[in-house]
Amino acid sequence: MTTESHSLMKEIDQVDSMVKWLASFGQSDSGGVNRLLYSPSWVQAQHALENKMKSYGFITHFDSVGNLFGKLQGSTPNTKTILTGSHIDSVLNGGIYDGVYGIIASLLAVKKLHETYGTPKKSIEVVSLCEEEGSRFPLTFWGSGNITGKYTLEDIEGIKDTDGVLFSEAMKNAGFDPVQYSSPQRNDIDCFIELHVEQGIVLEKKGSSIGTVSHIVGQRRYTVTITGESNHAGTTPMPYRKDALATAGHFISYISEKAIQTDPQLVATVGKINASPNVPNVIAGEAQFTLDVRHFKEDVLDEFCDHLANYFKQVAQKREMEITIDQWMNVQAVKMDPSLTELSKLAATEKNITFEPLISGAGHDAQVFGTFCPTSLLFVPSEKGISHSPKESTKKEDLEKGIELLTELLYRLAY
Amino acid sequence: MTTESHSLMKEIDQVDSMVKWLASFGQSDSGGVNRLLYSPSWVQAQHALENKMKSYGFITHFDSVGNLFGKLQGSTPNTKTILTGSHIDSVLNGGIYDGVYGIIASLLAVKKLHETYGTPKKSIEVVSLCEEEGSRFPLTFWGSGNITGKYTLEDIEGIKDTDGVLFSEAMKNAGFDPVQYSSPQRNDIDCFIELHVEQGIVLEKKGSSIGTVSHIVGQRRYTVTITGESNHAGTTPMPYRKDALATAGHFISYISEKAIQTDPQLVATVGKINASPNVPNVIAGEAQFTLDVRHFKEDVLDEFCDHLANYFKQVAQKREMEITIDQWMNVQAVKMDPSLTELSKLAATEKNITFEPLISGAGHDAQVFGTFCPTSLLFVPSEKGISHSPKESTKKEDLEKGIELLTELLYRLAY
Repeated sequence: MTTESHSLMKEIDQVDSMVKWLASFGQSDSGGVNRLLYSPSWVQAQHALENKMKSYGFITHFDSVGNLFGKLQGSTPNTKTILTGSHIDSVLNGGIYDGVYGIIASLLAVKKLHETYGTPKKSIEVVSLCEEEGSRFPLTFWGSGNITGKYTLEDIEGIKDTDGVLFSEAMKNAGFDPVQYSSPQRNDIDCFIELHVEQGIVLEKKGSSIGTVSHIVGQRRYTVTITGESNHAGTTPMPYRKDALATAGHFISYISEKAIQTDPQLVATVGKINASPNVPNVIAGEAQFTLDVRHFKEDVLDEFCDHLANYFKQVAQKREMEITIDQWMNVQAVKMDPSLTELSKLAATEKNITFEPLISGAGHDAQVFGTFCPTSLLFVPSEKGISHSPKESTKKEDLEKGIELLTELLYRLAY
Repeated sequence: MTTESHSLMKEIDQVDSMVKWLASFGQSDSGGVNRLLYSPSWVQAQHALENKMKSYGFITHFDSVGNLFGKLQGSTPNTKTILTGSHIDSVLNGGIYDGVYGIIASLLAVKKLHETYGTPKKSIEVVSLCEEEGSRFPLTFWGSGNITGKYTLEDIEGIKDTDGVLFSEAMKNAGFDPVQYSSPQRNDIDCFIELHVEQGIVLEKKGSSIGTVSHIVGQRRYTVTITGESNHAGTTPMPYRKDALATAGHFISYISEKAIQTDPQLVATVGKINASPNVPNVIAGEAQFTLDVRHFKEDVLDEFCDHLANYFKQVAQKREMEITIDQWMNVQAVKMDPSLTELSKLAATEKNITFEPLISGAGHDAQVFGTFCPTSLLFVPSEKGISHSPKESTKKEDLEKGIELLTELLYRLAY
């Protein structure tokens, strides 16, 4: 049995206007949104959402770090709850769909299910997670990290924002005084379902409305420093040079070529480079670049990164230069729950919604839940792949398909 | 007939101490020298040199921009003068041999010739050129440019140093009031001979004491800007990327490889690079780098630079990126006088001084004189090729060989 698409379509027309309503809390001059954790716009948005939840008949509460829950109580006693939602915080001048879409979609889906089918067997909770981006404080996943017990108050000790405001002070000012902190860890979660904008271009390129995510990638980040010899650009013949930037150029070019050859799911990026002295007529004595490598399999990451390190060292040795490769990030890949992923695909197929199995190359709250409880991550397309920008957008039709699928999935899980 | 090496050697032992004496005017904390055009240390150095010239019996004068001449009058009437010397100004915290060595060597050579052989047939003048480096004002070769009539007072109109001091004001303060300017152009120069430190590593690598320079290279400089698409480093598969930095890396690597293949005398340098937004986890939407290409043949420069431009455009088009190639410097190659170069080689051979025919990859006053009168440029080695640095050094033995050869050359030309 499926939900009735026709009547549902009328309701979910609301999604676009509701996203825009939430975007009004912290709207930026350029049409984006600034809603940093515990800021006034964040406080307003969470309280506006709480009121909305109440108006839908949900039982609401904030946990001690500011995660907002709206519950539709199930009829079966002692069952765990189905959690669905995403994060309310934004990056600086971010897009209006990132995070928020997942919250609005969850709200509308649960409201519709309640209106159409009444009380579910299992409880469903919509969650507006307080923080994911790490945009205000140098710490990410504060919301999901607290619910899953990965963070406690100790993790924010001494952490300040760029204005020097302590994390704990910001919490207190937003109405969540650390003095009253009690662990928000939940032990009653059946599963977590997150619907999010893709923030990439694959779905648009494939012409699909939904991405069914099987894995969230592991990430390795490095800083590579090459030390050669700074010298006169005119008087040093090519064979006598130890040109750090020429060698960096070779490596950067090699990284792209090798990544393409290695695996279609592998991405490797050199986003940042600095040369020294960085003057047109002086051979660079030092060049430093970052390397960001992502894949969903640890062995592929290991092999690729080891290969690069060996190649870099060999070339540097041959060219008589020094090289250091400093790893500063290592995030493990997380697998989404295969049976939930299968259920999504089945539901999409039955509802004639086009979908594409995907790997998420970006981090999401689902990766924190993924090692804690069965978790599913679903994407809708991002126009031109743009995200973290006021230009972020998703076609209304795709926003609707996302809600339709989420409603169907929740129906199958809770009723 | 050659000069008598034995007695000469005693005299030229002075060279090292005289270089260090001149370095005392503007000595930097790190053992280098700061002697910017028209600065107090520059004024002191020129006047100290004038006194030294007088003590050697030379007839001295300053021209109206501050070039200092010390003349040994020849016996033959109505003959042109043989000019020898180099520049007195330094870069910021520069080496103590750059420029100065050529002046000291000329002084000691002419003094010795006078003492040994008396009055020459042709007049010889030692010149301490006021400016070559362009370190204080954005203008180079002010000294040689005035003597050869390439510059007049108009060329410095409105030009200021980084402290906002006008060029004309600095001139006036140093004792060369522009109001009293009369063109320092000389029409009585027979030839110009410049002895200079190599500022490169070729002579040291070859184990030679002298470089006989046949050409000073032409220089082309460009800024290359690649515009791709800034995107998420995690969610953008490799084939969908327009990574400006990866493409820049490919070009930088290609430039080096192609330069090595093209011609042993060709040098091509990417010394400066900037990427945007220059963040580890964002694909660079723009990358900009400089390109400095040098060779002594215009057709080699043309062909190489055209090839690169075509290759860059082809690759950019294939990768669907924009590219602009902006040329901002084009200095023509200058040939030194072949008969003077031959005379130097002959003299070196007869005096058992090891020499190496060279192309100068750096600019020198000799390139300004080179299109004005027969000109010769001779090098002594720079230890480890280091220059424009307090670490700049030349072995005493090589300093002496340089003076020995210059003395012989002047003898053959003037006596």
